[in-house]
Amino acid sequence: MEKLLKDVLERVTPSKEEIDALNKFTKSVLRTANDVGIEATVQGSIAKGTWVSGTHDVDVFISFKEDVSRSKLEKDGISFGKKIIKKLGGKPELVYAEHPYIRSTIKEFTLDIVPCYKMKSASKIKSAVDRTPFHTEYILKNFSGTQANEVRLLKRFMQGIGVYGAKEKVRGFSGYLCELLILEYGTFLNLLSSSSKWKLGQSIDNEDFGTARNFDDSLIVIDPTDKNRNVAAALDKDKYEIFINACRDFRKKHRIEFFFPNEVESLSKDRLKKDLSKRGHLVIMEFKPPKVVEDILYSQLRKSAHTIVSSMKRAHFPVLGYSYASGELSHILIDLETEFLPKKQKVDGPPTDVDQKFQDEFAKKHKKRKTWISGGRWHVEIDRIHISPESLLNEIIKSPIDYGIGKYVAESLSKECKILASAEILDSDSEELGKFITSYLSKKKPWEW
Amino acid sequence: MEKLLKDVLERVTPSKEEIDALNKFTKSVLRTANDVGIEATVQGSIAKGTWVSGTHDVDVFISFKEDVSRSKLEKDGISFGKKIIKKLGGKPELVYAEHPYIRSTIKEFTLDIVPCYKMKSASKIKSAVDRTPFHTEYILKNFSGTQANEVRLLKRFMQGIGVYGAKEKVRGFSGYLCELLILEYGTFLNLLSSSSKWKLGQSIDNEDFGTARNFDDSLIVIDPTDKNRNVAAALDKDKYEIFINACRDFRKKHRIEFFFPNEVESLSKDRLKKDLSKRGHLVIMEFKPPKVVEDILYSQLRKSAHTIVSSMKRAHFPVLGYSYASGELSHILIDLETEFLPKKQKVDGPPTDVDQKFQDEFAKKHKKRKTWISGGRWHVEIDRIHISPESLLNEIIKSPIDYGIGKYVAESLSKECKILASAEILDSDSEELGKFITSYLSKKKPWEW
Repeated sequence: MEKLLKDVLERVTPSKEEIDALNKFTKSVLRTANDVGIEATVQGSIAKGTWVSGTHDVDVFISFKEDVSRSKLEKDGISFGKKIIKKLGGKPELVYAEHPYIRSTIKEFTLDIVPCYKMKSASKIKSAVDRTPFHTEYILKNFSGTQANEVRLLKRFMQGIGVYGAKEKVRGFSGYLCELLILEYGTFLNLLSSSSKWKLGQSIDNEDFGTARNFDDSLIVIDPTDKNRNVAAALDKDKYEIFINACRDFRKKHRIEFFFPNEVESLSKDRLKKDLSKRGHLVIMEFKPPKVVEDILYSQLRKSAHTIVSSMKRAHFPVLGYSYASGELSHILIDLETEFLPKKQKVDGPPTDVDQKFQDEFAKKHKKRKTWISGGRWHVEIDRIHISPESLLNEIIKSPIDYGIGKYVAESLSKECKILASAEILDSDSEELGKFITSYLSKKKPWEW
Repeated sequence: MEKLLKDVLERVTPSKEEIDALNKFTKSVLRTANDVGIEATVQGSIAKGTWVSGTHDVDVFISFKEDVSRSKLEKDGISFGKKIIKKLGGKPELVYAEHPYIRSTIKEFTLDIVPCYKMKSASKIKSAVDRTPFHTEYILKNFSGTQANEVRLLKRFMQGIGVYGAKEKVRGFSGYLCELLILEYGTFLNLLSSSSKWKLGQSIDNEDFGTARNFDDSLIVIDPTDKNRNVAAALDKDKYEIFINACRDFRKKHRIEFFFPNEVESLSKDRLKKDLSKRGHLVIMEFKPPKVVEDILYSQLRKSAHTIVSSMKRAHFPVLGYSYASGELSHILIDLETEFLPKKQKVDGPPTDVDQKFQDEFAKKHKKRKTWISGGRWHVEIDRIHISPESLLNEIIKSPIDYGIGKYVAESLSKECKILASAEILDSDSEELGKFITSYLSKKKPWEW
């Protein structure tokens, strides 16, 4: 185990050259900000010294006084950002978030220039990013000795098992959450030994605020800079459980793959054909991803998948599971137990003990059909609208907004969407599609490849 | 309406010849009982004068003193019964009920000689039949004028719509229940106008005992001879609702078919073929009915159908409905939305927030398979045992007792059971099968043929 962690640490700790290059870059950014007349600070994992080797994301916050209006902050934030980037020789790019901000790729770095308010207390912040400086300050003040390395181990472990990052694509553990966990448990191994016993609703309250009971999330980690905030509020329940189970599994098998998983090996065509023949019906929507930031893309993909599954279930298609992913193309996969439903559909009407009015309405609505009572309920047989999932999907593609699909995904679907069933899936030579289906069908955990 | 009821009444009121023949017969039975030295009384609808023309069932009770033991009552009941039947020139036949009794067909009559205890109060009876004399007495004492005719209308109406009779085949309204309803509402039409507004849990308490609140049945009719008994306790909920709805329907359409429904017209082969093609999968078990009394046969058929449907559902077959009937042959029909299920089966495991012990057990049980977390639950994919309902039915037929099928039906199934799906159903020339399927598929109410 010691050897394993040492190996991992060697790979995640930035080298002297890496640190020097980064320091040189951040200094030049701060100097440039000063030159254009705005107060700037480095934030995030780089400021806290908890960044993992290979990280090239640099967050620089430019701060405005509390009495500046929101619109002025946004306007000036963008214009200062542009000025700084241009002086550094980069090409500014506008990114939409709660406040829009400027991003640029300069050398190997992705630099974000984020405007924020300079506040006295984290509990009175005006927008989400205003907290960040408080988080940086808290971690810098409380971290000791080698705890940054423990955070690196934890981040790499979480990345390996697929639960690292607060972004929509993952809905996992944020960097700050990792830092607070190490602060609470001291070391990566101590955390693992504790977390393998965690239950739903586990709470951590570094500053003993006693406010954990106000939250009803899977994991509750009270923000030491704001007692009324759960740092783990956006953590997906499944990701929380996957973390706990990975911890339990890792303690039994000390394998490097928990930190550095192998690539997914796509199933061969023969194997895929055999697997599909044993299943009901797999159908995949394939379309060009809308050109929006990743968070919005994944948020809309997730909601689209949910709404499609709900529509399928409402139309009585037996959905077993679903998945979605986006790379060159976006894919939404629906896994069904059967392909076709019969033309006739049995519809449950009102129970026979509800107000007669509702029973009469049902009878009136279906007066040309035969209604009958069975099991304390009215029933009627109607002609089914969609006898195949493809038929329903085609209708969703025709009017995605009506089905609750998000705006950007809806626009993409309206342009073009292919529906792939077994034959088309087996015909495709896309490596991306192959890996996506393999991940779904194999049910292998990332560390099991 | 008046004309209609008059017509019905003409058909249900026994003629003078019919009454004379019956009186002559019952007198001879009572005389014979007296000759062999046992006290006998006529009971049931004949005693109460509420019998419908064409009734040939004569119930004669022979009564024993309270201090006679059960076994002696049974032994002597049978031997007296046999003696009476033989003297009348009939062939005695043993019928199994709570106490066995003797039955015989003599001329056009079916005569039951039922042993019972002669009790002082109906609330202290030793077996169910002991109540009957109290019921007869109560009705004779309280009925006035033409109420017997009102009962005849009601019985015929209930027979027409398929809810008359307490026997297992119907689980509907008993004759005594009909009489109490007329006692409460005065006339058939008054009852109809009230019952079309009945709700679940409607209560009637002729003697104002105030005990209705102790019951939780669809309809509560307190027995005037025993305040702790609901006369409608065995009434099937669906039959209760069908009665209410037939009342509502009849008040709109005054049609003779409510009393004397037309025969079910079997669907033509072409029509049946077309109908079946629009449905998922219909499968029928066909076997020789066990040689037991009708009540036991129908009780076992009903429970068999239930247990088969439960097994189907547990095996994830989407059951839409079922039906059973028995004539020359017994049939149990299962109506499914789809025919085949895929070879792979997704199984839901424990939720991720239950005690770790249960999660470990699940992991251990499926250690050679891939388990995964989704939606707060463990899942695993296994090889399905039965991919068609026929496969499961064949297993049930092989070991019916293990599946909870009643003894007598189980014996019949073990001897021979055919499984009929679309092809076999369309091949069959059985009129009985044709009507059975037609009734199920058409969803027509008896008065709609």
